[in-house]
Amino acid sequence: MQVIADNLHIIRPEIQAAVEKKNAGPIRDLVNQCITAGADGIDINSGPLSRDPEGTMTFLVETVEQVTDRPILIDTTNPTAIRAGLKAAGNRVIINGISPEPVKLGHILPLAAEFDVPVIGYLLNEAGHVPGSEAEGYDIALALLKAAESAGLPRERLMIDPIVAPLMWESGTAHNRDIIALIRSLPDVLGYPVKTIAGVSNLTTGDAPAPKKRLMEAAFLPMLADAGLDMALLNVFHEDTVRLARACEALTRGELFSWAAIP
Amino acid sequence: MQVIADNLHIIRPEIQAAVEKKNAGPIRDLVNQCITAGADGIDINSGPLSRDPEGTMTFLVETVEQVTDRPILIDTTNPTAIRAGLKAAGNRVIINGISPEPVKLGHILPLAAEFDVPVIGYLLNEAGHVPGSEAEGYDIALALLKAAESAGLPRERLMIDPIVAPLMWESGTAHNRDIIALIRSLPDVLGYPVKTIAGVSNLTTGDAPAPKKRLMEAAFLPMLADAGLDMALLNVFHEDTVRLARACEALTRGELFSWAAIP
Repeated sequence: MQVIADNLHIIRPEIQAAVEKKNAGPIRDLVNQCITAGADGIDINSGPLSRDPEGTMTFLVETVEQVTDRPILIDTTNPTAIRAGLKAAGNRVIINGISPEPVKLGHILPLAAEFDVPVIGYLLNEAGHVPGSEAEGYDIALALLKAAESAGLPRERLMIDPIVAPLMWESGTAHNRDIIALIRSLPDVLGYPVKTIAGVSNLTTGDAPAPKKRLMEAAFLPMLADAGLDMALLNVFHEDTVRLARACEALTRGELFSWAAIP
Repeated sequence: MQVIADNLHIIRPEIQAAVEKKNAGPIRDLVNQCITAGADGIDINSGPLSRDPEGTMTFLVETVEQVTDRPILIDTTNPTAIRAGLKAAGNRVIINGISPEPVKLGHILPLAAEFDVPVIGYLLNEAGHVPGSEAEGYDIALALLKAAESAGLPRERLMIDPIVAPLMWESGTAHNRDIIALIRSLPDVLGYPVKTIAGVSNLTTGDAPAPKKRLMEAAFLPMLADAGLDMALLNVFHEDTVRLARACEALTRGELFSWAAIP
């Protein structure tokens, strides 16, 4: 299980200010800290970028690449910004991502096909809600696969994000049990070794004491790892969570004595 | 997932001394600490008890019951000691346990049937080794079930311990992946909702820094919980591990908002 930093987010005031002034320093510093903390990749969450999507995404991608050659996730639904990011990037890129709304599929899937990059499909229904059952999740995944293939994207390029629900939600716990089952079964259901990614920080969105949030994160992450999750999108400044992800990797995919390499 | 204390073990010098002098105080103190730490049950690991098995097990069971009415696991392979423990006990009792050796099956299964108590079957082959594959584990479980039914024990009384391997072992990681799969599938394979128990402390037997041992324990426990483990036998003085077990319970079996009850 790789660890992808979700820290580079436009809602952080210092990042928003740096983006507005095209000031690379604070962004480089943050990305440097993420790499030091163990990030295997960086999610660039730029939001919708209604103003200057091309210039902003180009600036963000170029700034991140000044620090690291690890993969970048372009996290926006703005196709103009995505195209600019794909053109600017030298690192490996993943588009994050698409929900099954026809407009978004129509704009973004062709970009993934044109640039031959992976794209993350969200298991959300057309109303933008999480599915009400495990079965509905498979239906959405199959619809995303069909749309991807129709757009000329090889199936191996479609990744799935089953969408972790906040525990605060009334049905959050039940939904999160469904997504564990989904992650485990999607390769069989879709018929190829589909890669999966999950936003672990979503689990503890809302108002609760920090130690309790970390505890629930620590209980959930190994379950995701055991189900076969490929990438965990999380706050890499949660040092214990990153360490736990390494331990999970040693237990779930490790070769002989690989746990011995854990610091 | 219930938490069973594995702390009451004859190899602890203060316990051995207390047993030899029939001195209840230190044992009561230890059990009290275990209950305070969150133990849902107490494993009485008396060892083989070659001297005075009846008197010693009776003393141990009566002493534990002075402190708690929670379930007791009688953890010995000595049938004379088991019978004495079953006769002395007022609390619920589980016999821990049997390996598929004909002699042990022949001595212990009839006791479980006579006293109508659950007995834990170990997934070990007749040579006393862990199975070399997941498939061999199912074969052993089926053989245990057949032996239990032949002895007149209702199948629901047979629990299974798939035997966690130390990570120190060359094949430890691979074996522990097998046991996750076994725990998940045993109810289907055996055809009844078989209860499972696992000795979590085994995972980190051997020489390694304590923080690393705790980390590996923390990564493994949620995987066991997600697979459906019913009882985790562990050192309940590992406060973080007990807390993690409660969080796992909220995620895997909890009802609406049950995570909110986590302290």
